[in-house]
This record gives sequence, structure tokens and C-alpha cells, in this order.
Amino acid sequence: MATLEERIRVASGEGEADLLIRNARVVDVFSGQIEKKDVAIFGGVIVGFGDYPARETIDVKGDFLCPGLIDGHVHIESSMVTIPEFARAVLPNGTTTVIIDPHEIANVLGIKGIRYMAESAKGVPLNVFIMLPSCVPATHMETSGATLRATDLKRLFKEPWAIGLAEVMNFPGVIFRNPEVLKKIEMAGGKRIDGHAPMLSGKGLSAYLAAGIRSDHECSTLKEAEEKLTKGMWIMIREGSTARNLRDLLPLVTPKNSRRFLLVTDDRHPKELLEEGHINSMVKQAVEWGADPVLAIQMATLNTAEYFRLDHLGAIAPGYRADLITFDHPERFRVRKVFKDGVLVAEDGKMVVPSGKPTSRFGRGVGFQVKGSVHIGPLKREAFVLRSDEPLAKVIQLIPNQIVTKKAVREIPLREGVAYPDVGKDILKIVVVERHRGTGNIGIGFVRGFGLKRGAIGSSVAHDSHNLVVVGTNDQDILKAVREMKRMGGGLVAVSDKKVVASLSLPIAGLMTKASVSEVNLRLNTLHRAARALGCELPDPFMTLSFLSLPVIPELKITDKGLVDVNQFKIVPVFGEDG
Amino acid sequence: MATLEERIRVASGEGEADLLIRNARVVDVFSGQIEKKDVAIFGGVIVGFGDYPARETIDVKGDFLCPGLIDGHVHIESSMVTIPEFARAVLPNGTTTVIIDPHEIANVLGIKGIRYMAESAKGVPLNVFIMLPSCVPATHMETSGATLRATDLKRLFKEPWAIGLAEVMNFPGVIFRNPEVLKKIEMAGGKRIDGHAPMLSGKGLSAYLAAGIRSDHECSTLKEAEEKLTKGMWIMIREGSTARNLRDLLPLVTPKNSRRFLLVTDDRHPKELLEEGHINSMVKQAVEWGADPVLAIQMATLNTAEYFRLDHLGAIAPGYRADLITFDHPERFRVRKVFKDGVLVAEDGKMVVPSGKPTSRFGRGVGFQVKGSVHIGPLKREAFVLRSDEPLAKVIQLIPNQIVTKKAVREIPLREGVAYPDVGKDILKIVVVERHRGTGNIGIGFVRGFGLKRGAIGSSVAHDSHNLVVVGTNDQDILKAVREMKRMGGGLVAVSDKKVVASLSLPIAGLMTKASVSEVNLRLNTLHRAARALGCELPDPFMTLSFLSLPVIPELKITDKGLVDVNQFKIVPVFGEDG
Repeated sequence: MATLEERIRVASGEGEADLLIRNARVVDVFSGQIEKKDVAIFGGVIVGFGDYPARETIDVKGDFLCPGLIDGHVHIESSMVTIPEFARAVLPNGTTTVIIDPHEIANVLGIKGIRYMAESAKGVPLNVFIMLPSCVPATHMETSGATLRATDLKRLFKEPWAIGLAEVMNFPGVIFRNPEVLKKIEMAGGKRIDGHAPMLSGKGLSAYLAAGIRSDHECSTLKEAEEKLTKGMWIMIREGSTARNLRDLLPLVTPKNSRRFLLVTDDRHPKELLEEGHINSMVKQAVEWGADPVLAIQMATLNTAEYFRLDHLGAIAPGYRADLITFDHPERFRVRKVFKDGVLVAEDGKMVVPSGKPTSRFGRGVGFQVKGSVHIGPLKREAFVLRSDEPLAKVIQLIPNQIVTKKAVREIPLREGVAYPDVGKDILKIVVVERHRGTGNIGIGFVRGFGLKRGAIGSSVAHDSHNLVVVGTNDQDILKAVREMKRMGGGLVAVSDKKVVASLSLPIAGLMTKASVSEVNLRLNTLHRAARALGCELPDPFMTLSFLSLPVIPELKITDKGLVDVNQFKIVPVFGEDG
Repeated sequence: MATLEERIRVASGEGEADLLIRNARVVDVFSGQIEKKDVAIFGGVIVGFGDYPARETIDVKGDFLCPGLIDGHVHIESSMVTIPEFARAVLPNGTTTVIIDPHEIANVLGIKGIRYMAESAKGVPLNVFIMLPSCVPATHMETSGATLRATDLKRLFKEPWAIGLAEVMNFPGVIFRNPEVLKKIEMAGGKRIDGHAPMLSGKGLSAYLAAGIRSDHECSTLKEAEEKLTKGMWIMIREGSTARNLRDLLPLVTPKNSRRFLLVTDDRHPKELLEEGHINSMVKQAVEWGADPVLAIQMATLNTAEYFRLDHLGAIAPGYRADLITFDHPERFRVRKVFKDGVLVAEDGKMVVPSGKPTSRFGRGVGFQVKGSVHIGPLKREAFVLRSDEPLAKVIQLIPNQIVTKKAVREIPLREGVAYPDVGKDILKIVVVERHRGTGNIGIGFVRGFGLKRGAIGSSVAHDSHNLVVVGTNDQDILKAVREMKRMGGGLVAVSDKKVVASLSLPIAGLMTKASVSEVNLRLNTLHRAARALGCELPDPFMTLSFLSLPVIPELKITDKGLVDVNQFKIVPVFGEDG
């Protein structure tokens, strides 16, 4: 790291720059113009334009040069890989900075999980800033691995990487002034507080904003985004693996208001990371759909940096960090060279330096115990037996391609007071096994829509508390799935006839692996094929599974504490039409 | 002050708002649109739009409503009044926030002067944020009342009102890496660092910016502003009492780049405050010269708030402070009502509440000793005698309406080895008496351009060290002027035949008075008339005088240490063509 003195000296023309990028069409996010010039870099920082003596020169021959892209809101856990592997996947796509919300790992490991994420970013050529999870656990109707109270966050806010409070999903908690929620907001002090308030409007939205929350990534309609914009929110346009809002929201963006828009992915699974890319795919898509290229780039660079007050990022100017990318043409936006801190790290879609291992031993997980997070006692299949005198049960009914479910009431086969799945009618058993504290909690219910004819599939990725969730045609295969997840320390599994037919181990908090994004993707493909072989026609049954325990999304869900009627926001008995 | 809980409650529609502003055409600085709506206020903060029950309702009958205006860079000392009186002058013009650089009082009183400014803003209905003076003293060629080193600033940076490092005028000090200058920059940490770099360009500018400086208010040409914009500076467009750049720079501003432009006054003297107004005059002027009204308002509100990270200012939205103004029409921009923290403080050009006295006793000057800053021993007129054997002297030649001067060489009348003014040829004597530390330093020289036929005029406002500067036709009147300034504890004075013919006492640091802006203006008019009666034709001889001791502005200046050749940046003898 160069000193301030050295940097100024080289900028003034004395001494040698480290690198001169020549013949670049520089995208000036300040003026909105593109001009051909040379860019000098020293000590990882841009020091000037024009003719500088330099130790190394790279002629980019008229390629366009813009700031490294920034993802303003992403849960890296959704990609199931560690930060070094995530970096290796997104850097060739031009992403040099991510603002992460480690909400998932925090639900499993609490502060330890957040610190592990921070540590594992050290030494990796990707800027990683952390918004502190605001809602751990998400509800009282489930058992999470940790509880983060305001006082817990207080210490973390002192860390340089902790730049704000992450999406305050508990918007009723804000509007109805839950003291603990307000304490967290007050604790954030002057730091940014991200919002998460789908469909909230009118006075409810005003109340939410009066608390000081200033962004939202849940807008799905123009009207919703318009109101949020006018009420002072930065609009994070999201294009995740499933939730995709770019096409719907883009028409709202004009040169007059564009500074208030940011691009984010929220969740990108390995498949989309590999096939579409990352923020670069959003820039390209925006331009295809009519956005001015510089404006699209601003939404992926300067705007995000300004919102998060990352003063040295998001622009090409003296004093800014030399996180830069070249691309072929604004219409195609094919990323060619990626420079992180002035070092060429990726080219033509491939890393050209080692992806970077964390320099911190804690980042490598040593001393942090991020593994071994599955804590359950010995289990027998009797644990999954459900008894009833009456046959009518509330059944979770999937809706294709959505994470909301419906409540269906169906007759369940009973034999000697024991309820059984009805595979012919696609009524399968679903269980959620608490896996953090060894409480022995098991939620048992029924689900329609998976279509499994035999076997079971299970996941330790199960929003938001990440207990073990399994859907199966019989208790023995369900038990095998649970035991396999326990053995792996977490992961995804497909079981048939008491045998594991496919799996992906996710030993880090039961959420992530040290494997690469492409290895994970291969494993996932195998798992999907296995599920199909068992009769399941869903495009991504494991993702579907992972949202069935999320008790904040209507209508019927299940946690380790039992079946949850989300509209009533309470635990209800499986049997009986009412309650 | 309402609690967060109360604010959210009222925003949600429970309970009563304090005030509902009805039928306002609200300028939405986020979307760039203007829409008719009602604005609800509680606890000094905007809580929502639309129908709210409220204790008080004000129907503004279709008037436009925009955020209170912000002056991004102003030296209040130039208005010669205290903060409460400055507030009383600018609030009716719609200014609700000022970012001040107390450079002048810091040169006299150091940290004490800065703290006095901060304290005297308490209880005044004007947001006052302070950028810490970076260059005290301005040069080594003068004696100031204080020296502010990096270590002195360190403690001040912890104060909530200290939001950054003020204009780093010493740009050679940055470019050539003066360790003390760099230390101050490093001390600012992540806070804003304002620039001041007239005409700096190319690698010099890049070096300056590589230090982390991010704004400039000294652009005078389009080309200059264009380079600074592209290199990452926020451009503060200045319209002071003398330096006026709006007309020249406005053509550069487009919807694509306008977020990087701010409006500032830098220095506004009583006359212009009274006759033109404040930031409102700039908005009006910009619109007259073709700017989109919302864009002009953004430059006076949101942009400035964003640059300085004043998150709760500069917009009309839930959670923002209710600093609001109404005006008749975007084309005329006549400010009608001014609300500070939701309270109507001014209407139709007049304060409607007491202007506010500082609630802090220190703010009233008690315990701070901001008075009594003129420290000089007994003086006789022999002190002003200048001896020489040779008649050729370097004479400061005024240039009409400029603060730069020329070096002229003229023959000075000598009698018995003593040099005398040559009133017939408009060669007058100028003296600078050190007044901070009682060093006895007196700089003596000659000046052309004042045209006094008799008497003398003097000022304790004398940039940047604010020693006593007097121009006179004879030593006795010069002495009288010095003695009167000493008696007043600082101020401006016109003397004729050893009698004071007009004066303005400025007892606070020799720079400011507790009188109102209009009282000061009346006194200044009297002083100007007196100077005219003595033969001086300059429009503002006292202001001209106040810049003659500023040794950073070419070409020939004078300080308590003697005559300064600014181009050589050194003290030179008065007599002899060379040296």
C-alpha cells in the first residue's frame, strides 16, 4: 500500500506509475461522457489521466473502460460457496465490490458467522462490505441457531467492514414500534439502513421511512417503485435467480432521477452465476431494454458507491481505487479485462491470478468452528410418526414458480391412528428437524406439489433458520435423508430405498462449501436429475424445499415448531380444518 | 424532540401531527417532479404525505414547497455579524442550513474562535455545520493570532458539528507534500475535504485530488470546471459579493451531471445580503439563465446534503427534517414562508419568531473572550516613519475591481532621509500593525489607487491574519486610525484631521459585531461616504484594504512583516527596484 505522500508524488508527474492503461474509451460517470484517454495507476489507486511514465503499460486498443461493478445487496450464502469462490465466479464478470447481508449464516452461527464472512474476505481481490443482519431470528415461530439482539450488533458496528444495518424485513416491527427493532435502528447511528418492504405503501410506508430506512430492493411494480422513490428511498433494482424486477422497473428510470437507482442481485444461484453472470448481465440487459449505457453503468457503480458512502469506489478519477473493467462495446457489454486495485485479475471470462485465499486463518474457518453446525441427537423413524383420530388435514399446497403456498384441506390415510402420506394423490410428508440446539423439536406435516413417487429429498438450507427440511414418501427414507445431512454437517440430499442417490455437502454452517461454483452446479444438476428420477417434476425442488420453512411468506409453512398459518401468524394443528 | 417511537407512530397515522401543510406544490428532488400534496410534520420531522390529523394546519394555497436552501460554503465573518444575526438575515431568504468555514476567526482566535462559532449556533433556527480551517496561518510571511496544527484539529474532528476539512488553499503544500498539510488531510479520516484550487489543472490537479480532496469553489471558466468535474470534484458554483461564477459555469450543468454541482456564496457582505438575498438569489438567477427549476433547487438542497452526507436534509420525504420553504413560482422564486424544524420562522421576507439567541453562554461569548482581541502596546507616530536614502520604491498598484495588485516602481519624496506619501500623485502610505501577540511588528509601504486627499482609513478585517491595516495621507491620521481600532477592539474607521469621522466597531475578534446586518450596512454606507469625502473613489475601499495584506494573491502585498512579492513568495525591501 502506497503512502499518501507517494501517491501524490506520482500523480504530480514525479516518479513512475505502476501501470498505464492506454487507449481506453473511459466512461466518465460524473459527466456522463465517454472520452478516449490513458489512465495512470499507482499503489492500487488511480492517480491521473494522460501521459505518465509507468513500469507497465497495457494498451486496450479502444476498448471501453468503466469502474468495477458493485452489487449493492447480495446474500453470498445463496451461491452456496465461500467468499473466495464467489469472488472467483464474479470477478471475471466485472464485479469488484459486493455489499453482503450474511443473514443466512447469522441465523445459524450468529456473530461468529458474520465475523467468519468478514475474515474470509481478507486477501481476496474483491471488496466485501457487510450490512449487519437485522432480523435474526426472523420470527418466534422457529428455532434458529442464534439470536442477534441490538446489544450484539453494537460491537459489530465498530468494525470497518460493517457499513450499516441490513434489510429490515420486520416492517410490522418498525411500524408497530417493537422496542428491540427500534433499538437496532438507533444503534445504526448515521450508517445506512436498508429496507425490505414488499408492497408496503401509504402511511405504513411513511412510518417505515420515518424510522430512517432509506432503500428497498423489493419493488415489483412501477407504481410501488414510484411511491418509494418519491418518499426518499434508493431503489435497488433486483435481478436475482428467481425474483426479477429489471424489466418492470426500468421504465421509471430517467436522467433526472437515475441517481436514486442501484443494481443488485439479492440471490444468485450457481446456475445463473455461470450462465448469465452477475451485475454485468443486468447492465447489458438494461441497455438492451433501452437504457442509456452510461446511466446503466452509473446504477452499477457510482450510485451504489454514493448510497453506501464508499467514497473511493465507483468512478474513474484521481484518488479512486483502481477497480476497473474493460468491455467491448456499450451495446454488448462483454467484460474483457478486470483490474482490482490496479492488478489484472481476470481476462476474457477467466481468472488470471489465483482466486485468492483468505489471508486470515479465521477466514479459512480455522478457530471459528463454522463447520459441525448440525446438532441433533440419535433419531429413529418413530420420531416422524404423526397420530390422529380424524383424517382431515391442512396440507401445504405448492404454487408453481412461487414461494407463496396455499392451504389445502385433504383427507389423509389413517391406519391404527397413524397418518400416512398418500403418494398416489401427491400428499407427501414434510418434516423439519431442529438442528442448532438439539432441542429435539420436529415439525411434521403434509405437502402437495412435489410429485415424488418414492424416496425423499432434504436440505439444510431452509430459510430463515436453516433447520433440516425433508419431503418424503416414507419415514425410512426421510430418516436416511436426515442422517445423511447430519453426517455431512449439512447439505442437500436425495434418498431412495434408504440409499443416498445424490448429495451436495455444505459443511460450512450447513449452507456453504469450499468447492467452486461450477462444482456446486454439477452437484446440483445431479441432485435435480435424481429428484426427477424419483418422480419430482419441479425445476428446482431443493430451492422450493428451502422456502417451505420460511414462516413470513404466506400461506401455510412449517418450522421445527410445527405447521404455521402465516396469515394468522401462529402455529396451528395439522389435523382439523380450523385452528 | 420527539422520540423515534413517537415519530413512527404519528407517521403510521396514529395520533396527531404537529402541522399539516396543505395544498402545496411539492418539489420532489428525487423524481424531479412537482406534485400537489399535503405534508405532515411531527417533532420537527416530515412524517408523511396526505391526510393526517394535525394540531395546526397551514393552507399554502398552491404555493410551491421545496426543501430549505443550503449554502455549501460560506465564511460568515464576511458578513461581519454573529451567527444569530446572520441567521436572521438569511432565514427569510429561505436558507435553513449553512456549511461554514470559520477561517477568519480561526486566524485570530484559533480553536477558541471555532468553538465560539459552534456554540453561538446553538438555539438558533439555522443548521450550522463547520468545516475545520485547514490553513491557519495562511503563510509564514505574516503573524496570525493562532496556529492550527494537525494535532489541534484532531480533537475538533470528534465534535458532531465538525463535518470535514475546509478548503485546502495551500495547494502547493499538497502537491509538494508538506508533511503538516498531509497530516491534516489524513486526520480528516473519511470526512469531506473541500478544495480551493483556482486555475489548477493537469497533473498538479491530479496530485491535489489524489490526496482525497473532492470539491472546488474557485472555478471561473467552463474549461476549468469541466476538467475538475471529470476528475471527480463536486463543483461548488459560487456567487459571492465579488467573485461571481454562476453565469460562466451554468452552461456546463446538464441533467446527466447536475448531481455534482452545488450552490455556494463563499462571502456575502451586508449590502448584497440585503439587496440580493442569499442562495435564493442564485436559484432565481439560474432559472433566469435557463436552468430547469428543479435542477436549480437540487443544486441548492439535495446535492449539497449528499456531498456533505447530511442525510436528513435537502429533501421533502418521511424522516427528513422539516426545513421547508414556500415560494410563488419557479420562474420568480420569491420565498414566502420558511419553516425550520417544522416551525414557521419567517414569512414574506421577515422573521416571525425571535431570531434566536444562542442557548449556550459560550455562544454568547461569555467565558470565551472573543472580545478584546486587539493586543498592541502604546504607539507613537514615529513608529510609522520610513527612512531611505534612495527615492525609488516598490508601490502596491491597485487594479480596479480586483484583489490582485501590480507592482509599480515610483519615486517617493524624501526629506532628511524620511520618506513621505505623495498625495498629489496618489502615492499613500500603508501600514500593517501586528495586533495579536504584541510583537510590535509594523509593515510599512506605499500604495496607489485609493485616491485619498486627506485623512486615513483603517480595518482590522485584513485577510488572512487580520492585523490592523491602514492607508493614509499622513502619519498622525494613520496613528489615530490605529488607536481608534484598538479602542474599539477592532473595526473599520475613517479619520480626518486626527478625528474619527466614521466607524464600525467589530469587537468580536475584530471581525464581527452583535449588531444586525442592516445596522452594519448603514454603518458601512456612512464609512463609504466618509471615505469618498476624503477623496477615495473606490466603490468599497474597506474591502479593497482588507485584501492588501493577503500574501497569497499576486503581485505585491504587505503584512506586519513587510512588503511581500507574492510571485517570489518572499518579503522584499520597499526601496530599490529589485529584491
